[in-house]
Amino acid sequence: MDKQGNKTLTQQSQHGCFDGTVGIYSHRSQQCQCTMNFAVYVPPQAKSRPVPVLYYLAGLTCTEQNFITKAGAQRYAAHHGLMLVAPDTSPRGDGVPDEDSWDFGSGAGFYVDATVAPWVKNYRMYSYVTEELPALIHASFSVDPSRQGIFGHSMGGHGALVCGLRNPDQYQSISAFAPIAAPSQCAWGQKALEKYLGSDESTWAAYDASQLIKHHASADRPILIDQGLADPFLEQQQLKPEVFKAACEAVGQPVTLRMQTGYDHGYYFISTFMEDHIRHHAAVLCSR
Amino acid sequence: MDKQGNKTLTQQSQHGCFDGTVGIYSHRSQQCQCTMNFAVYVPPQAKSRPVPVLYYLAGLTCTEQNFITKAGAQRYAAHHGLMLVAPDTSPRGDGVPDEDSWDFGSGAGFYVDATVAPWVKNYRMYSYVTEELPALIHASFSVDPSRQGIFGHSMGGHGALVCGLRNPDQYQSISAFAPIAAPSQCAWGQKALEKYLGSDESTWAAYDASQLIKHHASADRPILIDQGLADPFLEQQQLKPEVFKAACEAVGQPVTLRMQTGYDHGYYFISTFMEDHIRHHAAVLCSR
Repeated sequence: MDKQGNKTLTQQSQHGCFDGTVGIYSHRSQQCQCTMNFAVYVPPQAKSRPVPVLYYLAGLTCTEQNFITKAGAQRYAAHHGLMLVAPDTSPRGDGVPDEDSWDFGSGAGFYVDATVAPWVKNYRMYSYVTEELPALIHASFSVDPSRQGIFGHSMGGHGALVCGLRNPDQYQSISAFAPIAAPSQCAWGQKALEKYLGSDESTWAAYDASQLIKHHASADRPILIDQGLADPFLEQQQLKPEVFKAACEAVGQPVTLRMQTGYDHGYYFISTFMEDHIRHHAAVLCSR
Repeated sequence: MDKQGNKTLTQQSQHGCFDGTVGIYSHRSQQCQCTMNFAVYVPPQAKSRPVPVLYYLAGLTCTEQNFITKAGAQRYAAHHGLMLVAPDTSPRGDGVPDEDSWDFGSGAGFYVDATVAPWVKNYRMYSYVTEELPALIHASFSVDPSRQGIFGHSMGGHGALVCGLRNPDQYQSISAFAPIAAPSQCAWGQKALEKYLGSDESTWAAYDASQLIKHHASADRPILIDQGLADPFLEQQQLKPEVFKAACEAVGQPVTLRMQTGYDHGYYFISTFMEDHIRHHAAVLCSR
């Protein structure tokens, strides 16, 4: 039920967690033309007042479950009074096209609005994340829509950069863990962008943070990125955070890229630096 | 490799985590006559000195993965300088008997040494946890064997009570999340104890914490238990923490049973109170 009593969400489960609640919800998505799931952590502060909301976009192969079960963010969100929202990473289900691949299709929506058949009908994760999901959250939970941040991991770290850069009025804070920071220049990104958007690479720029930053710098909105030096995908040139950092510096976008010795690409890495990321967002979102 | 260079363990994976490392290991178990897996968190302090070790026993259906991926304990273990060790919950694999049941056999070893065929050969989780695994840890990692604690969840919360009560010189600290606290008096426990130990209930007492406490109280070793009031298994009378609490009080065993409003039986509950449990153990194990 939303605040007006309309049944738009189905709660699949709810669990007490750090004096708040973790809920898994499903709904019929207009953008994706399928049932979509997402996880929400409602902090205890939401009982008494609208709270800021921080969106987390997960990486390849993930669902709405990975972040909420493994990242350990709830403790910090409870401390700062932040709501957390973590959607699935692609449309799924009967009638949704897919292919037998872990880095494209189901679990790999890359947070773009596809323009090429057969993906064009359902694979609209950019509009889902930036429009449909926030509207649903605002209608259904006690949040302050003037205070929103976005972060994510790998494919979702890049998704957070793109959504954040393209919508500066909507997202006041941005951070990423090991983002695929220059997708036009790596194998994962090239495969996904060509199949979702077509072979005209000029159309890819709208979904490449290292291109977007040229026209979307915000001097008063610093970006935090953590990258593990033991991450195999860094060596495989799938991530390229240095390309994004250089692009930021060329246009005066403040960015802190921390290269973390001994950390790989997984949730043990993410959980280690989660407190810093939540603090980065809370400093902006919770200071008013 | 152990400290002497003998190959007894195979490291399946290693990940940086909170300035230490999470490793998954496998080895050939003499007690269980099969390959067993366990997870270890090595805190940063172990680089410079032997550290205390805290064993965690997981619940029904779990493996060595659940705790280390979901409980969020590494942050606190890193703070206090505690090693964490989390074994699998039963023998498994080719030649290990099982039955088509989630609450008996694979994933449900109940931390007993079985005496009844066909379970007797492999299902020796009590001796595995209290003898073989600690010996292997002491031989392979930088730990102080004079400082060990034990805790766990549900079936494993009870396992921790049993192992701890029966071995007061080995484990200096004990705690549990939602333990199956009186297994002779609940359906899960009765099924497991009868099948692993036989129908003579007098043999069950050695594996029932609410019986054992009558002869194993330690006034200087307080036990901490957290139990969610929204836990469906509490209402189903599978857990019975009140029976254990009453048995403790009858013999002067200090026990703190905290009934937590709004929390269920899962890892969102466990993660919420993990900091308190690690502190409970660290107060004893890390104070010397």
